[in-house]
Amino acid sequence: MTQKASLQTIILQLQEFWAAHGCLIGQPYYTQVGAGTMNPSTFLRVLGPEPWNVAYVEPSIRPDDGRYGENPNRFQQHTQFQVILKPDPGNPVELYLQSLEVLGLNPRQHDIRLVEDNWEQPAISAWGLGWEIWLDGQEITQFTYFQQVGGQSLDPVAVEITYGLERILIALNNAAAIWDEPWGTGVTYGEVRRHDEFEQSKYYFETADVPRLRQLYDLYKAEAEACLAHGLVVPAHDYVLKCSHTFNVLDTRGAIGVTERQAFYGQVRDLARRVAETWLEQRKEQEYPLLKESQTSKVKDRAAAANRPSKFDPQPAAFVLEIGVEELPASDLDSAITQLGVNVPRLLDDLHLQHGVVSVSGTPRRLAIMVESLASFQPDRADLVKGPPAERAFDKDNKPTPASIGFARKNGLEPSGLEVRQLDGGKYVVAVVKQAGRPTPEVLVGTLPGLVARIKFDKSMRWLPETRAAGNAGGVVFSRPIRWLVCLFGKTVIPFEYAGLTAGRTTRGLRPYNSPEIEIPGADKYFEIIRKNGIVLDVQERKALIEAGVRKLAASVKGEAILPPELLAEVANLVEKPMPLLGGFDKEYLALPEDVLISVMMKHQRYFPVSRHTGTKHSLLPYFIVVRNGDARGMDLVRQGNEHVVRARFADADFFVREDLKHKLEDFRPRLGTLMFQKKLGSMLDKNERIEKLTEALIPLLGLGADEAVFARRAAHLLKADLVSKMVIEMTSLQGVMGGEYARRDGEAPPVAEAIGEQYQPVPRTRPGLAVALADRLDSLAGLFAAGLAPSGTKDPFGLRRAAIGVVQPLIEHGINFDLRSALKSAAAREPLPVTDEAQAQVLEFITGRLRVVLIDMGYRYDIVDAVLAVQSDNPAGAARAVKQLTAWVARPDWSTLLPGYARCVRILRSAPATDDGPLTINASLLTDPAERGLFDALQASAVRPPSSVDDFLAIVAMLIPAINTFFDKILVMADSKSVRENRLALLQRIAALADGIADLSKLEGF
Amino acid sequence: MTQKASLQTIILQLQEFWAAHGCLIGQPYYTQVGAGTMNPSTFLRVLGPEPWNVAYVEPSIRPDDGRYGENPNRFQQHTQFQVILKPDPGNPVELYLQSLEVLGLNPRQHDIRLVEDNWEQPAISAWGLGWEIWLDGQEITQFTYFQQVGGQSLDPVAVEITYGLERILIALNNAAAIWDEPWGTGVTYGEVRRHDEFEQSKYYFETADVPRLRQLYDLYKAEAEACLAHGLVVPAHDYVLKCSHTFNVLDTRGAIGVTERQAFYGQVRDLARRVAETWLEQRKEQEYPLLKESQTSKVKDRAAAANRPSKFDPQPAAFVLEIGVEELPASDLDSAITQLGVNVPRLLDDLHLQHGVVSVSGTPRRLAIMVESLASFQPDRADLVKGPPAERAFDKDNKPTPASIGFARKNGLEPSGLEVRQLDGGKYVVAVVKQAGRPTPEVLVGTLPGLVARIKFDKSMRWLPETRAAGNAGGVVFSRPIRWLVCLFGKTVIPFEYAGLTAGRTTRGLRPYNSPEIEIPGADKYFEIIRKNGIVLDVQERKALIEAGVRKLAASVKGEAILPPELLAEVANLVEKPMPLLGGFDKEYLALPEDVLISVMMKHQRYFPVSRHTGTKHSLLPYFIVVRNGDARGMDLVRQGNEHVVRARFADADFFVREDLKHKLEDFRPRLGTLMFQKKLGSMLDKNERIEKLTEALIPLLGLGADEAVFARRAAHLLKADLVSKMVIEMTSLQGVMGGEYARRDGEAPPVAEAIGEQYQPVPRTRPGLAVALADRLDSLAGLFAAGLAPSGTKDPFGLRRAAIGVVQPLIEHGINFDLRSALKSAAAREPLPVTDEAQAQVLEFITGRLRVVLIDMGYRYDIVDAVLAVQSDNPAGAARAVKQLTAWVARPDWSTLLPGYARCVRILRSAPATDDGPLTINASLLTDPAERGLFDALQASAVRPPSSVDDFLAIVAMLIPAINTFFDKILVMADSKSVRENRLALLQRIAALADGIADLSKLEGF
Repeated sequence: MTQKASLQTIILQLQEFWAAHGCLIGQPYYTQVGAGTMNPSTFLRVLGPEPWNVAYVEPSIRPDDGRYGENPNRFQQHTQFQVILKPDPGNPVELYLQSLEVLGLNPRQHDIRLVEDNWEQPAISAWGLGWEIWLDGQEITQFTYFQQVGGQSLDPVAVEITYGLERILIALNNAAAIWDEPWGTGVTYGEVRRHDEFEQSKYYFETADVPRLRQLYDLYKAEAEACLAHGLVVPAHDYVLKCSHTFNVLDTRGAIGVTERQAFYGQVRDLARRVAETWLEQRKEQEYPLLKESQTSKVKDRAAAANRPSKFDPQPAAFVLEIGVEELPASDLDSAITQLGVNVPRLLDDLHLQHGVVSVSGTPRRLAIMVESLASFQPDRADLVKGPPAERAFDKDNKPTPASIGFARKNGLEPSGLEVRQLDGGKYVVAVVKQAGRPTPEVLVGTLPGLVARIKFDKSMRWLPETRAAGNAGGVVFSRPIRWLVCLFGKTVIPFEYAGLTAGRTTRGLRPYNSPEIEIPGADKYFEIIRKNGIVLDVQERKALIEAGVRKLAASVKGEAILPPELLAEVANLVEKPMPLLGGFDKEYLALPEDVLISVMMKHQRYFPVSRHTGTKHSLLPYFIVVRNGDARGMDLVRQGNEHVVRARFADADFFVREDLKHKLEDFRPRLGTLMFQKKLGSMLDKNERIEKLTEALIPLLGLGADEAVFARRAAHLLKADLVSKMVIEMTSLQGVMGGEYARRDGEAPPVAEAIGEQYQPVPRTRPGLAVALADRLDSLAGLFAAGLAPSGTKDPFGLRRAAIGVVQPLIEHGINFDLRSALKSAAAREPLPVTDEAQAQVLEFITGRLRVVLIDMGYRYDIVDAVLAVQSDNPAGAARAVKQLTAWVARPDWSTLLPGYARCVRILRSAPATDDGPLTINASLLTDPAERGLFDALQASAVRPPSSVDDFLAIVAMLIPAINTFFDKILVMADSKSVRENRLALLQRIAALADGIADLSKLEGF
Repeated sequence: MTQKASLQTIILQLQEFWAAHGCLIGQPYYTQVGAGTMNPSTFLRVLGPEPWNVAYVEPSIRPDDGRYGENPNRFQQHTQFQVILKPDPGNPVELYLQSLEVLGLNPRQHDIRLVEDNWEQPAISAWGLGWEIWLDGQEITQFTYFQQVGGQSLDPVAVEITYGLERILIALNNAAAIWDEPWGTGVTYGEVRRHDEFEQSKYYFETADVPRLRQLYDLYKAEAEACLAHGLVVPAHDYVLKCSHTFNVLDTRGAIGVTERQAFYGQVRDLARRVAETWLEQRKEQEYPLLKESQTSKVKDRAAAANRPSKFDPQPAAFVLEIGVEELPASDLDSAITQLGVNVPRLLDDLHLQHGVVSVSGTPRRLAIMVESLASFQPDRADLVKGPPAERAFDKDNKPTPASIGFARKNGLEPSGLEVRQLDGGKYVVAVVKQAGRPTPEVLVGTLPGLVARIKFDKSMRWLPETRAAGNAGGVVFSRPIRWLVCLFGKTVIPFEYAGLTAGRTTRGLRPYNSPEIEIPGADKYFEIIRKNGIVLDVQERKALIEAGVRKLAASVKGEAILPPELLAEVANLVEKPMPLLGGFDKEYLALPEDVLISVMMKHQRYFPVSRHTGTKHSLLPYFIVVRNGDARGMDLVRQGNEHVVRARFADADFFVREDLKHKLEDFRPRLGTLMFQKKLGSMLDKNERIEKLTEALIPLLGLGADEAVFARRAAHLLKADLVSKMVIEMTSLQGVMGGEYARRDGEAPPVAEAIGEQYQPVPRTRPGLAVALADRLDSLAGLFAAGLAPSGTKDPFGLRRAAIGVVQPLIEHGINFDLRSALKSAAAREPLPVTDEAQAQVLEFITGRLRVVLIDMGYRYDIVDAVLAVQSDNPAGAARAVKQLTAWVARPDWSTLLPGYARCVRILRSAPATDDGPLTINASLLTDPAERGLFDALQASAVRPPSSVDDFLAIVAMLIPAINTFFDKILVMADSKSVRENRLALLQRIAALADGIADLSKLEGF
């Protein structure tokens, strides 16, 4: 391109394009919104049955994306172009790609990819499935099939396309940053917007007044409520948007704690839901004004053609079924292939269709089933149908009775065709019903819809209006929309219908080649044609190609690719034609923490990083390998694009880290006071101070050494400081990691830095780390339970299940005995609100519940776990040891004598009448029978002190078993004499009581 | 047109048009604004020297325009299309008209008019001059040359064009209302927006919570201040906009009183000004980034051609000067013609140019000066220059001295050419300097710029950047931009330069014909060519054409046109080619109050209403006459357009009146409590209650009869109730009028209704009306002075000057004696804050000041007024009578003896030594001299009681004059004997004191 693109030409072109495709052209909303989705043109209009097609620009405000105008493509205000298509026109992805071509983005020159995205906006109770659309590694568009908005399920589903215009402009002009690109003639984007970016960033991060913003939020909320009370849905929505923006500003100011965030979300969500409900009611009352005849008839009915298959060659032949889809998520592709691998043979067997090898393969855009040598007919079959008893079937003249005549007619036979057989212990008339095998196409046309429908996904979506999906029982859902079906038996089409489509012989080629339509003449040509069109259908083949390519590229810069199998599997499922290419970045970014670099490359970009080993150390190289979908055309553009993305992301991280490093970690600590943990529990600073005190209390409980104690105290002091660092505010997942990093750079002792760094890990490696993590988690549990915020049902907004697991698991793995009960009491004493004994008991019970899950997950039998936890749960490490020992005992060959022997002692005590005053005492002088004397002596000999472990206890029991067995053989425990009886019971009580504090064996199977 | 226009095609077309003309395309702002002007793309970017051309849509929110979706083209949200051109490209009106043609508005089919508009937005300290652009009577665009924004003068000036898209759409589709017109394909405007209109109207008028909104306003203001304190200008501006919108909502809720409004305005204005200042400072620091070379060179330099006139015919010839302008306001046109009528002959005389008849005429687009038979040269002239005295000019040898040689050389003569003349009482050497007359074109080319520059207007504007106007001393200002100059002397162009233009021979034709360029071959052809092009140059001729046409059309419906001369004069100055046409409206609207109908037709629309006389009554007919600019083409479209406008306006009024009539006037009264009068002075309800009590007190002071008192009391009770009626909230100018109207319809006694109706008139006709008006005005004066809000300098935000005049003028006209002092005391006693004696004295002094102005304006001599007011001002009617009488006395022939006589008495008292203890007493026994005895007797005889009026007093003086004259002739007042002296002084004191309470004659001229 010689002429540079400009922001405004892009907008004008998109407006024209979408207007020409039937969209209304709307305008940005008049109050700050985080996305075009919040504009009522989307939020309200996607609700209900009315059609709605609209396109508009939306300058979207996201305060926390502000970068003072320093980042090349990240800003607190970016320009979205929003398109809503409702109902789904059937080809929205193709329309979108056409619009990119209008802008000048040739798919042959670039790498355009649809990357799974499960879009969710909890603040407005909305979700949908779709993709991020990547251009050379840069997300330029969000593409979503809305499933739910404002808590309302959508029918029809609406397609949302959200272009990020700045990024598109950068790509079109192959620019390094947005600032010098034209807005319009003679004026750059930077000249229009950069100074605003600086000021607004400063405002949002530094200046906005927190108390005033909180007041604004409250006023907006009250006004939204009042509007709703008057049924004024649009004004109410306006105030919901203002609430939402104000919340975002507060959050950017760092004034919102984790738990407070939940409360805000809850309020906004509730309001948004009520707005949506009210709108729906109103539209219903107005009888859906936009539901016009002309609109609904727009939808082409594709299911018009006659569906019976016609003539075919009656020889066995190859069969192919291709399910053409919009890009499936990587894991859904794997799952679908696995399911079909099981279901297809099963279906063929159920249908009695003989067949050769079945193979299932697939790419993000197609699932392909190939069956070799499929029989062209079912075999003929004879089924025996049982009729009336023979004596009632014929009269004395041996003529058929009316009963048998009726039976014969029902089965399509003459009475003379009936036979008599010995069946079910009697003689019965039977009809042998012969069934001619039906032709395969005829069989399949009715059963294949079920095969497709049976594929299940973790998250499924709707895209057809309910009315159109009605032909398919239970509606049509799939991972992503199904857009074509190819089904051939030999050369014959099997025109089954599913999801509003009729199967045919037309497949589609690669996206970068504009998905050309391709005719498949016969099933046997399918693989060949697909391969000829550049598509690698087999997952393993794609993986192998990628791995080889990636290794080669890494070697070209004397490095080794970091190639974890999960990433390889994912990348292989993102492309139909893999083409790895090497990109680089400025090596100054290698100074960033490695966690940050790796996280950006692998997690965000699905790149393979490159490292080099020198001696025992490995270090990253300033390269990455990306796998393009397509061929080598335009490779330089694709590389530049990807490099641009990485540069922008690293620049962003670098900005934060440099900003943060202007201060010591300790300097951040006071600002924790502005970060609310939870209203009743104070700020994060309050929490940090509680953690410090609690850590002090835990040091003796955990038995830390003197050095460890010093490190733990210091780590506790700095523990949460990184929460107000810019890097963590930006990437929450780096919390703790950054704290550790910053502590190290501040010159804190390495164990201190490590303890801070691992505080969020399920099991901290070091003991100081364990101490502070436990303090943090116990504080949360005690405080939030007391505040009435315990998890309920499936809801656990504060992650307390994770916290409880985080208490028990590390104690088990470190094998440290620990008194949970007193630790919790310590925590409770420091909370700013009373934590009653009852609340503490609840917390302990909750932790025990998690402990049970942890132990069962470790592979222990649930009954063994229950037996131990019934009596000892306050010390997780001890309980784990006990479970382990008990498991070993249960596995012993003599367990079958051990358990019953001990059980007899316990069980007879249960059936004995209750005694009034506590445990009985043994009067040795009353033990007259040798059998009871023997048991008593054995007991005296083995149990000199109470057993301290399962091993102890069961070793004693093992020794007692012969005496116990003799005792029960010889002795009548329930003697008439009360004193004799009670003396014997007392003896057995002593034996039963050996388990006290160890385990309750009655919970075990076989007790 | 077969295809209907849609809102979105209009937008797309305008975006393309303006983008093609070098504008950036922007987006609507993300916070509610009342107009695109508030968007920082206008508000900030028009400031400072940088060029800026931008166009964007702005859905603008004006809460009080909400009509619940019931009005055809009035809504709380309307869609503006905003264009900013900075600097002025030289042809912005033509560009704008081209854009209308692109939309499909053919100027030959419509009546497109530029109607004077002095745009002002005090809330942001902004003003400019320009026009409303009317399409068939409907305002479709506001076109302004910004002069000042945010209190900053603009240089260069920016042109703002604000299209009203809904109205344009209505016009394009010739529709009755917006609702059924297409937004885009298949969806109407109403379907997109009507329900919103209903809900938002309801919210703004009924639901919005006043206390919460007030809190929001305060928070926004505080946040704006904080942003300014940090130098964050864009965030500050955002909050200023939020303040402004919140204020608008409060106002729509009826929660803002008149004086409170001023306070709000003041705050917002102050913030806006500081935002503008800060922005300007920032841009300066950044060295005006947009001030690029390429941009400034855009401006074409038109003054390149050589400017010396060339050859011409040396005969006297006709001269014409046409100043081509963008549409002048009607009164500016008249004023310019008058000024030129004086200045042109004066200029020609000053230049010694002989000439025939000078005529000046003009239309809104041109001022034309025609001079018949203008001499082609100035006459030759001889000037006498005085040199040194003759005796010093020649030496004894009669040779010229060096002095005279130097003198001769200086005047371009040989010493021998000097003459000696008798001059100024001596002999001097003189030089007779002969000056050849210069050719007329050469003379005029240098003087005509001054002629144009000397035309002054009440409000002038700049449009050229200061740098380009620099050639013209003092810069270039005019009523509206000058766009061409025609200047011909005979066939010769006089190419003088002014305002960046060079005069030539090209004029322009009628706007509706696209202003074609027309060549004028010679001055004598000018009138003929102008007429041939359809332009009626003469004001009187246009008036006559209009009057005849209007009368004829009125007669065609058996009516008579209401044709006030001011309106006729205005309309004649709005067109170049008048074409009256008759339109009608639904006669049901005749049920509206006539004031409303007339006000809409005459004031808003410049239409001539039509009425019919039946007996003594006249009544309006459902017609109006509009005068189009142009010919008869497309007349039906023009009529329909105008009828649509009237219908919409009447529908609007009808809506209000019907809404209002659902309640009795009395029912509105309690809601006055929500309307703030002034913070310290309480609500309008408080004020109304004070007025009631004060009226009670004024009844005896005014001497009302029993019936009058009853009416006054009732009127006072209902006095302000209409302020919260919808009609008055909408058209504030109808306050009082509507109250009277509603009172009448409620069945109140007619005098009550009348009193309410005339409360705001300068002089209420009835005495109950007078009573309530005085009560209202005195209450305001007392309260606002006490609150520290007295007028200062030229500032009088609460109209207190008008209030004071409204106290004195009616009292004078009704001739009612009145004790202002005690009335004011009464008012003061009822104020909610203390009104000190000092404050009361200030109010009285202030009222006296107004009284003086009123009396002087009545034609009385200032010294007479001062003489009276020096001693009596508490009773305006009395003072007026005194002034009148004194004026008559002053006019008497014997005044020249009366005044000196009396004055002698007074003056001698002043020069007498001060006495210690008050007035002296006359001891008759000490009066020994007949002259003093005579004066004493005359005094005793004439002044039996103190005079009660000027007439009384001066009649006595007249009688005393002979005795006074004798007294002073014979008597030495300052006798040596103290007792004699004091006795004589006492006698004169008695005479002087006759004026006490009447007048202080020492203030008179000649005293």
